[in-house]
Amino acid sequence: MSEKKLLILGGTHGNEINAPWLLKQWQNKPSLIDTHGIKFFSDIGNPLAMEKCLRYIDMDLNRTFYSEILQDLNNNAYEVLRARSINHIYGKGGSKQSQFVFDFHSTTANMGTCIVLYGRRPADLAIASFLQYELGLPVYLYEKDLTQKGFLVEYWPCGIVVEIGPVAQGVLCERIVSQTLLVLSTIFNLFHKLKKQLFTFPETLIIHSHLRSVDFPRDGNGNINGFVHPNLDGKDWLPLNKDTCLFSGYDIEEKFNESKYSLMGSEVPLFINEAAYREKGIALSLTRKETIMTDRKWVDELISLM
Amino acid sequence: MSEKKLLILGGTHGNEINAPWLLKQWQNKPSLIDTHGIKFFSDIGNPLAMEKCLRYIDMDLNRTFYSEILQDLNNNAYEVLRARSINHIYGKGGSKQSQFVFDFHSTTANMGTCIVLYGRRPADLAIASFLQYELGLPVYLYEKDLTQKGFLVEYWPCGIVVEIGPVAQGVLCERIVSQTLLVLSTIFNLFHKLKKQLFTFPETLIIHSHLRSVDFPRDGNGNINGFVHPNLDGKDWLPLNKDTCLFSGYDIEEKFNESKYSLMGSEVPLFINEAAYREKGIALSLTRKETIMTDRKWVDELISLM
Repeated sequence: MSEKKLLILGGTHGNEINAPWLLKQWQNKPSLIDTHGIKFFSDIGNPLAMEKCLRYIDMDLNRTFYSEILQDLNNNAYEVLRARSINHIYGKGGSKQSQFVFDFHSTTANMGTCIVLYGRRPADLAIASFLQYELGLPVYLYEKDLTQKGFLVEYWPCGIVVEIGPVAQGVLCERIVSQTLLVLSTIFNLFHKLKKQLFTFPETLIIHSHLRSVDFPRDGNGNINGFVHPNLDGKDWLPLNKDTCLFSGYDIEEKFNESKYSLMGSEVPLFINEAAYREKGIALSLTRKETIMTDRKWVDELISLM
Repeated sequence: MSEKKLLILGGTHGNEINAPWLLKQWQNKPSLIDTHGIKFFSDIGNPLAMEKCLRYIDMDLNRTFYSEILQDLNNNAYEVLRARSINHIYGKGGSKQSQFVFDFHSTTANMGTCIVLYGRRPADLAIASFLQYELGLPVYLYEKDLTQKGFLVEYWPCGIVVEIGPVAQGVLCERIVSQTLLVLSTIFNLFHKLKKQLFTFPETLIIHSHLRSVDFPRDGNGNINGFVHPNLDGKDWLPLNKDTCLFSGYDIEEKFNESKYSLMGSEVPLFINEAAYREKGIALSLTRKETIMTDRKWVDELISLM
């Protein structure tokens, strides 16, 4: 049985330029990352959008990976064509079939470096546990909210998103590039340790599980009439308390507080003011912090995929 | 003689959303700014680009305001049409003819709140002197570099740009909105004081005059192969010294230092890593800090335009 491959992606959103830039540098200088001989492919998710420094051309590539849209042959949006193409090449039966996908993003929100999981797939949880153990990375677990779907990594047997911020779209920034490099190196090191049975698996995993997303306040015409409260902006990963104001503004009578948003007062806000989510009607997402026991079966599942 | 009008613009670049958002709030709630009865118009520079959250549709609106392009009737780029339209309405003989333009921008660079002047027009210098005196705002004087031209404000008898950062494109941010509001209020207060002869004119003006812009390092194929050095990124307005590295990277043998860039070692870097300038081949601009004596004739010129 041939060794299963890793797929490393950057530029799934064309204006998140740091990861694709690093991938290019790495191509030119392979010694940049010690891959321990692990087989991998790397590619740019959305090259046309990257050329134009746009998130996407027709629709968000990272919301197109689900059967209804990929199998609707009347849908020829650029990103749908691209998604089919990525799947054709790197998916099951493809010439560069990959088992694991690592999709590197950046965000304008003050998220630091973190892992995003879509649902609780054992192998994804195993990788998240290892990366949290090695680098202390927080984990955002997106689940049970069908307002967003079709994430690329869900289409592969195992895959996670790495989000790094804050950085403005279209800005090349050493801090983001270095963090991307660190996580990439750690991933190869992890696969190396797994193959050599040299790994340490932690007993617990801290996750921030998705509760719901919250839109900006809007007036009767649907126009945004408040901004993220200055005391909250940039405070990703810090729990709210019962006095937290989410929004404020000029054209409104009262400040927006927890009663309007049915806050419990312990939610952890994430992706606060991510530029690209404004069009999706998301000002921030609320999560619940949980410490869960890890399960050795997660590692078994991960190893069975290798 | 009828009173001369002020034109307040936001959204000349469609992804700089804070000023246009404030203008909308102000429209809904006129008491937000005490205009002292000064006559003004306000408008969105590039509404179509703003709708799509893009800097521009076909070309940079803030580089189209010069005769060759505006009078070339074969050029029907959206921004050229829009520039003609703005000029038709707010320019000489227009139905909303304005004498003064205040064009509010935002930047991804760590520029704080500042004034940008294009050349040394006396009335512009007077306004800059007043705003620096009132609010301590630094002034970037762009001159003698024809690689960039056609700035909107140059097409009016008196006009300045206000730049506020850092903020990612497409992000609504209280800090940027509040600064915009403060500068706007101060401008109306200034015109009020000028009319009442109640102003204090400072003796000196500190300017940062443009020397030249510097591109990112590039490889033989023209691809960017270095980033702004992490010790420099975010250090707008802080003078370089002779050891300053401008850039660094992975795919290069040596760090890029002052000798390669013929630095004197006292230049002040501005607009470091502004996202929108990457496509213009600008990683940062170098300026020289100067303290100049103000001239009462500047105020006379400003008052003569009122």
